[in-house]
Amino acid sequence: MKKTVCFGEVMLRLQPPSYQRFMQATSFDAVYGGGEANVAVSLAQFGLDSVYVTRLPNNPLGITCRNEIRKWGVDTSKITFGGDRLGIYFCEKGASQRPSNVVYDRAGSSISTATDNDFNWSEIFDGADWFHFTGITPALGGKLTAICEKACIEAKKRNITVSCDLNYRKKLWSREKAGEVMGALCKYVDVLIANEEDSADVFGIHSTKSDINSGVLSYDGYIDVAKQLTQRFGFKYVAITLRESISASVNNWSGMLYDGKEANFSTKYSINIIDRVGGGDSFGAGLIYSLVSGKAPSDAIEFAAAASCLKHTIEGDCNISTVSEVESLIKNGGSGRVQR
Amino acid sequence: MKKTVCFGEVMLRLQPPSYQRFMQATSFDAVYGGGEANVAVSLAQFGLDSVYVTRLPNNPLGITCRNEIRKWGVDTSKITFGGDRLGIYFCEKGASQRPSNVVYDRAGSSISTATDNDFNWSEIFDGADWFHFTGITPALGGKLTAICEKACIEAKKRNITVSCDLNYRKKLWSREKAGEVMGALCKYVDVLIANEEDSADVFGIHSTKSDINSGVLSYDGYIDVAKQLTQRFGFKYVAITLRESISASVNNWSGMLYDGKEANFSTKYSINIIDRVGGGDSFGAGLIYSLVSGKAPSDAIEFAAAASCLKHTIEGDCNISTVSEVESLIKNGGSGRVQR
Amino acid sequence: MKKTVCFGEVMLRLQPPSYQRFMQATSFDAVYGGGEANVAVSLAQFGLDSVYVTRLPNNPLGITCRNEIRKWGVDTSKITFGGDRLGIYFCEKGASQRPSNVVYDRAGSSISTATDNDFNWSEIFDGADWFHFTGITPALGGKLTAICEKACIEAKKRNITVSCDLNYRKKLWSREKAGEVMGALCKYVDVLIANEEDSADVFGIHSTKSDINSGVLSYDGYIDVAKQLTQRFGFKYVAITLRESISASVNNWSGMLYDGKEANFSTKYSINIIDRVGGGDSFGAGLIYSLVSGKAPSDAIEFAAAASCLKHTIEGDCNISTVSEVESLIKNGGSGRVQR
Amino acid sequence: MKKTVCFGEVMLRLQPPSYQRFMQATSFDAVYGGGEANVAVSLAQFGLDSVYVTRLPNNPLGITCRNEIRKWGVDTSKITFGGDRLGIYFCEKGASQRPSNVVYDRAGSSISTATDNDFNWSEIFDGADWFHFTGITPALGGKLTAICEKACIEAKKRNITVSCDLNYRKKLWSREKAGEVMGALCKYVDVLIANEEDSADVFGIHSTKSDINSGVLSYDGYIDVAKQLTQRFGFKYVAITLRESISASVNNWSGMLYDGKEANFSTKYSINIIDRVGGGDSFGAGLIYSLVSGKAPSDAIEFAAAASCLKHTIEGDCNISTVSEVESLIKNGGSGRVQR
Amino acid sequence: MKKTVCFGEVMLRLQPPSYQRFMQATSFDAVYGGGEANVAVSLAQFGLDSVYVTRLPNNPLGITCRNEIRKWGVDTSKITFGGDRLGIYFCEKGASQRPSNVVYDRAGSSISTATDNDFNWSEIFDGADWFHFTGITPALGGKLTAICEKACIEAKKRNITVSCDLNYRKKLWSREKAGEVMGALCKYVDVLIANEEDSADVFGIHSTKSDINSGVLSYDGYIDVAKQLTQRFGFKYVAITLRESISASVNNWSGMLYDGKEANFSTKYSINIIDRVGGGDSFGAGLIYSLVSGKAPSDAIEFAAAASCLKHTIEGDCNISTVSEVESLIKNGGSGRVQR
Amino acid sequence: MKKTVCFGEVMLRLQPPSYQRFMQATSFDAVYGGGEANVAVSLAQFGLDSVYVTRLPNNPLGITCRNEIRKWGVDTSKITFGGDRLGIYFCEKGASQRPSNVVYDRAGSSISTATDNDFNWSEIFDGADWFHFTGITPALGGKLTAICEKACIEAKKRNITVSCDLNYRKKLWSREKAGEVMGALCKYVDVLIANEEDSADVFGIHSTKSDINSGVLSYDGYIDVAKQLTQRFGFKYVAITLRESISASVNNWSGMLYDGKEANFSTKYSINIIDRVGGGDSFGAGLIYSLVSGKAPSDAIEFAAAASCLKHTIEGDCNISTVSEVESLIKNGGSGRVQR
Repeated sequence: MKKTVCFGEVMLRLQPPSYQRFMQATSFDAVYGGGEANVAVSLAQFGLDSVYVTRLPNNPLGITCRNEIRKWGVDTSKITFGGDRLGIYFCEKGASQRPSNVVYDRAGSSISTATDNDFNWSEIFDGADWFHFTGITPALGGKLTAICEKACIEAKKRNITVSCDLNYRKKLWSREKAGEVMGALCKYVDVLIANEEDSADVFGIHSTKSDINSGVLSYDGYIDVAKQLTQRFGFKYVAITLRESISASVNNWSGMLYDGKEANFSTKYSINIIDRVGGGDSFGAGLIYSLVSGKAPSDAIEFAAAASCLKHTIEGDCNISTVSEVESLIKNGGSGRVQR
Repeated sequence: MKKTVCFGEVMLRLQPPSYQRFMQATSFDAVYGGGEANVAVSLAQFGLDSVYVTRLPNNPLGITCRNEIRKWGVDTSKITFGGDRLGIYFCEKGASQRPSNVVYDRAGSSISTATDNDFNWSEIFDGADWFHFTGITPALGGKLTAICEKACIEAKKRNITVSCDLNYRKKLWSREKAGEVMGALCKYVDVLIANEEDSADVFGIHSTKSDINSGVLSYDGYIDVAKQLTQRFGFKYVAITLRESISASVNNWSGMLYDGKEANFSTKYSINIIDRVGGGDSFGAGLIYSLVSGKAPSDAIEFAAAASCLKHTIEGDCNISTVSEVESLIKNGGSGRVQR
Repeated sequence: MKKTVCFGEVMLRLQPPSYQRFMQATSFDAVYGGGEANVAVSLAQFGLDSVYVTRLPNNPLGITCRNEIRKWGVDTSKITFGGDRLGIYFCEKGASQRPSNVVYDRAGSSISTATDNDFNWSEIFDGADWFHFTGITPALGGKLTAICEKACIEAKKRNITVSCDLNYRKKLWSREKAGEVMGALCKYVDVLIANEEDSADVFGIHSTKSDINSGVLSYDGYIDVAKQLTQRFGFKYVAITLRESISASVNNWSGMLYDGKEANFSTKYSINIIDRVGGGDSFGAGLIYSLVSGKAPSDAIEFAAAASCLKHTIEGDCNISTVSEVESLIKNGGSGRVQR
Repeated sequence: MKKTVCFGEVMLRLQPPSYQRFMQATSFDAVYGGGEANVAVSLAQFGLDSVYVTRLPNNPLGITCRNEIRKWGVDTSKITFGGDRLGIYFCEKGASQRPSNVVYDRAGSSISTATDNDFNWSEIFDGADWFHFTGITPALGGKLTAICEKACIEAKKRNITVSCDLNYRKKLWSREKAGEVMGALCKYVDVLIANEEDSADVFGIHSTKSDINSGVLSYDGYIDVAKQLTQRFGFKYVAITLRESISASVNNWSGMLYDGKEANFSTKYSINIIDRVGGGDSFGAGLIYSLVSGKAPSDAIEFAAAASCLKHTIEGDCNISTVSEVESLIKNGGSGRVQR
Repeated sequence: MKKTVCFGEVMLRLQPPSYQRFMQATSFDAVYGGGEANVAVSLAQFGLDSVYVTRLPNNPLGITCRNEIRKWGVDTSKITFGGDRLGIYFCEKGASQRPSNVVYDRAGSSISTATDNDFNWSEIFDGADWFHFTGITPALGGKLTAICEKACIEAKKRNITVSCDLNYRKKLWSREKAGEVMGALCKYVDVLIANEEDSADVFGIHSTKSDINSGVLSYDGYIDVAKQLTQRFGFKYVAITLRESISASVNNWSGMLYDGKEANFSTKYSINIIDRVGGGDSFGAGLIYSLVSGKAPSDAIEFAAAASCLKHTIEGDCNISTVSEVESLIKNGGSGRVQR
Repeated sequence: MKKTVCFGEVMLRLQPPSYQRFMQATSFDAVYGGGEANVAVSLAQFGLDSVYVTRLPNNPLGITCRNEIRKWGVDTSKITFGGDRLGIYFCEKGASQRPSNVVYDRAGSSISTATDNDFNWSEIFDGADWFHFTGITPALGGKLTAICEKACIEAKKRNITVSCDLNYRKKLWSREKAGEVMGALCKYVDVLIANEEDSADVFGIHSTKSDINSGVLSYDGYIDVAKQLTQRFGFKYVAITLRESISASVNNWSGMLYDGKEANFSTKYSINIIDRVGGGDSFGAGLIYSLVSGKAPSDAIEFAAAASCLKHTIEGDCNISTVSEVESLIKNGGSGRVQR
């Protein structure tokens, strides 16, 4: 069984029930999630030996967060406890023309004050095949860039494949800072994952014709972006998620995988959204599962797109779909007939 | 007032709230339903004298099940109490490309261990005009095929119209066994109800061109199926529901009624689904109401289709629409303006 | 800061959770709302000095109703307490082809038994710029027509702009009575707001070609209606909401503003409805805000339409959107991308 | 099987969830209940042929109310539909030193505008053994006193036992009016049921020493009250409920039955209250069941007290306990060991 | 109408529903509260002109917090918006032998980074009669001690009565630091409020015999504490809350008011606790209301104790009881009879 | 770290929310639990290396059950998947004089059809220190008695301590059968755990004076029972839970541990019950933790009693208290002061 390691921040998501706005809420639904934790959970559902590494506060919230991830079969034994608090984000779910709204309250979280001593990468990577992190982690500041680099170096030393989801967050750092830091880290990265905007935000590499808000995609433009990224950093694979936002309720969704030679586009799904948080992460997990399992690029991108399509129909951050559910969507399409 | 009798299993449906998956649920919404009970409840809402016959365990769950059906005005005085347990099914509601998922836990239910002595058909049918059962009942095994046949014989003796919804369930019996048993019972049946797949599954009678998953219907094919069924069994009417599954969230829905001479197709409704469980049953109830009330075939199929369209917008197994609500949909269309 | 005054009835809305029907409900969600209160709340969110005037029973329900409106920053100090009861309406939310259903229980409410002494208009209007009421208020009977007229006279004396939303309710009064009373009150009105049907119901002024249920709009017809209304009553502005009901789940929505010379039509929004109650009121509030803030007609109608589009995506009667949210929809469109 | 008839008003009870106060509630739990309906439901659970008679509005709330009562096996076929509205009461549940708070909104209810033609007493009483009403019904005004008298006369003509629960409500009528009307009706009454205060409020007959708020009961005082009542009206039985309110959370509860010769006091229960609404009604039902079944007075009062003790542990207005549950409490005491 | 000003931190309280533990929760109930905000809300319910001053983040959570306080009729126009975040505390409700558990997450809140310019005390105190703060505010650090002192100086200049609730929080500062800072601030304080432990924790003044955990109180000891406090700081009044914790479910509760000459003890209430958070604050509010209204000490302490008794039966931080409800408890005792 | 192994059935518990009765429920709260699983979860919270062994159906319910146990840090890797269904029990929570009511629906569960091949005891017991099972497991029939015996033999071979909770269930088997089977298995048992009734039910060994329902305990009687058990089976320890049921809401709770020489009685706790299911199991876990950790008998019984006291205040089957929480109760008593 292939072993994967994911590293990053996991937060408490607090969300008004149903479609309530923040100002109407008298309670919040609570789930735990974060870019890399979401990938780790999905990989465990796909049957891999999935390890998740982070730092959590040693209080009931930190312990609960660990338990919730452990529930899904992720190995949480490498999580370190310390620091002051669990990062929180408040999320108001959008509908139709009203966008979802996120209020972050993550400053001072336990992971952001982690130090080199918190993680024994040699021990963590023992027997591992894949290492995944995202651009959010170095963006959290503190010593996280150095920690990420140390992890990458250790991974490369062991011939572990490294994947990174750019995941640019403008509230965390500037484009300039992101470009500098991620540019340095990308030299260790084999598989780059990004959404339509990330490469422009972080590296100034623009898709030539696509207008994000219009929802009109330029396929050629994305191939061009992937080529530029590959030329600059020498990635083995560049994967890009393609979201066309019709409204907060309906999105078109597909993905592209460029293997240095040619670009494979997946089926495009028109999705009635239940919860789009973690959509990109589930794509990353689908891709990692596919590549670590030896799928061909065209199959890999189909699997990643179908997996993340299913995530959009599931509440919470994590894609708790199985391989057989993803394959059933690929094979039978999304007609949604009851499975009796 | 016309009197109808429905006979079959009623179960406890346990469903995670909203769109939660089984693995996320910390509670289950509980409703009671079953193919024939759903028909009985709908007929009572339409104003008929509706009798429902089954066997329930003499414990709080069996009693609650009886009470819930009685609430809707169904005559439950012919229900027998005995046996060990109430059948249960767990249902996870699908969304968009994620299909609904059903886990049955019905083995050993009180109805499946019923005996001849549990039902006094002569008394039950006193004054009745119509008898309805489905293919699920004999599929439950035990003595239920013999009990169904006895009921049919008693019904025919009294000139009571007999309807049957084929409702093939592959988890309950094989196609071969179903074909054999249902073939024998169909000789008592006047009105056959089926979905697009049932006649092929049970009797090997195929619609020539339709592909269930593609959602493309062949109208001529269904007429052909109805003709073949009529030729083989001599039914007065064959009604077929026509579902085009666009996704788990959106379905097209219509119906066909063949009267031995010509086929009447209903309006086709494009439905944003609230709960599709019991959709076929509500069609059956709409059809029975129409025919027992003397509606013409073209009106009957319009009523049945409109009734079951409304069911898809109602939570739970049962169509709790009234005749005037169904007629309003037929007359005014489904624009959904507020009824102030 | 501009000061607005709204006057009318506010009720307790009781609604089965989710899409439950009345007969399934074991609880009711409770919100407070009413045509003019909804306008007042929205105006307060837009940053105006918004006063709401009504009469409430001096019991926990009346006090709670006052508190809930006060929460949104509306000045409730002019509300009078007295009378017997708070009006109630029960509302069952429709879905797809099943329409929403409203049961009113508002007879004998405290506002309907108000007298001249309950409201000191001179004090209420001190410093005010705008007065808004709707056709529902005089329809409640008692002395409310006289009270409305007295308020209008006082408003005109102070050069306060007067707006009125026709809001015809057939369960409250006949077309004849409505035409007579509203005709008399309209001579004080500067800005008339109506939906597609109101002018025909109240004044017998018909849009030439539009069929409400078909959802096909005649733009020219509405211009013609606005012209006729302007000619008869001398309004400065006539605003009409244009709803195309595709189903209870999806509506197209736009608006028209006629300024005596030309008609301005807004963008048309295709809305996945969360809650359409109060949609027209939010349009009125958007219009009042725009006009009292000095926007040009074409901008005013865009703002009103976008504001009310957002309301359809928000639970409850009131549009709790801000000016910046409305402007963001106008500027960026309704693609619903997450606001991180 | 003995047949009982209960007549009176049934209302929608709206209650904030858990221990919320009115001003905190964003939803209301909904149950249906009323003094006589509660008795009817309890009698049906005890296995009697229980008929409930009232007048309900012909709208979804009236129909739902009928359905909810029907669910419990009560014969609702004699309910008349008409009039304008269902009476409502809002109930805030108390705790510890904070009392429960009730806001009535029952004016103009369908039963209060009933006429003589609404009830065919001859048909209703066919085969009946017992008739029960309460002092609330004539207190509702309109023609209800006359209707009650007509029912009593018809009952006496048929040798049907008549019971009445005084149930004085000071918000409905004055002590003087109550005394006059109830005095006239009591001449038809065989079994009088009252709480500690009713006889003083309605007939000016005082228990000599008890102080309601102190929770100290005078047993001799209650015997004296019963004697006086018997002397004045010639009742066969006088039953009095004895509530000692320690707090809103804990009450002591017992009952007395005077048969014209001697007084029988029940066991006293110290109850941790779940819902005390309907406690007196469940006592009445326990008494009626006991007497119509031929129990001795000492057994009857034990059954009535135990039945109503259980009601205090059940949410909603109605005692849905069975005879065997009541007998188990009498026999085994209230140690509450799990029934596995 | 008397005008009061309260100043301090208000936080978002997140609490698992019912008696769930943190590790079981999938949602959190959300209320807003804080020592001084709770006092302000209670004073508004008592009919005073209550002003609340704080600093909140300019995001949806800060705005919602302001709205929720405004709902209760508190003047929130002096609240300043700025800073980074709203303080949060997570609270797990105890039961029986399991104590409630609080996890604070308040570091870096907007109030803790307030500066002198945020509050114009001259304007805030215009027309005010009373100023209230607690020991939590200076404990938050930053410039809050200086801000508190500045407010006190301005208050004394205007002859405004100053009250302070010691409210020692060991997680915020040491006993030494608290003693030093509060000692300095107490010279401006007229009315000191404390619980059984505060004076020992902050000033090293011990009640001679009471053992907090044993629940055995020494009345003489508390008088002695009050005398020592008065001698050291010259308070006009010292009020002490006396809690005997029988368990997390049952507490005895009373209070003492020392006026420099004699000590008045209130009635002692045995309370079945619904929510004890804010119990001390409601005592403070009851006391302030009583003293600002001119009640005698013995009446003041009865009112304060009864008010705070009621708070323990109410969910959330705030006592939303009215003067008449408090007086009813004092007059009628806590027997909890239904208020029909 | 000590390693423990627990083996037995785990079921889905379905419970109406709050205090609803079965017949009122429209949803069920869902938790997973079973005698031995509850012990395993508690031991994991105490920090032991806890392994749980069972057989679950390979469907979403079985997988969810595994996940829920895994969440708590229990090693679930030895669970076998197969068979037809997960056992279910429905539980209605009692209150005051109304007892809790349990409806079992466990026939045919996956564990009851387990075979010898499902469990590799040699592998399971590798490194283990303790093995725990209960009398429920052999009572389930099939091959479970043989499997239990095989496990015991393997355990004894490895010098693993064996504990057994008698846990007699009269619905599963007769007293005679239980006595015979448990008598045979007890020869492998070192530590016997029982409630007040078990030894009489299973072995006919009676406590001389205690009356279970009266709630009066005979301490000497229990010592006598323990002595007899020890004499007959040679146990190292006999532990008995002592429950005095005051009502379904309040129980007294303590325990006794007999070490072959003397009996140690714990503190007696008077508990306001939140959820008593699993109370005995949490006692067993507290005892096992204490003994495997080398506590003295008097300390062990205090720990076991305090641990299980806390369980009664926690919803669900499992005691999710930590060692420090249990020790805090022992040290500080159950005054329930807030842990800020």
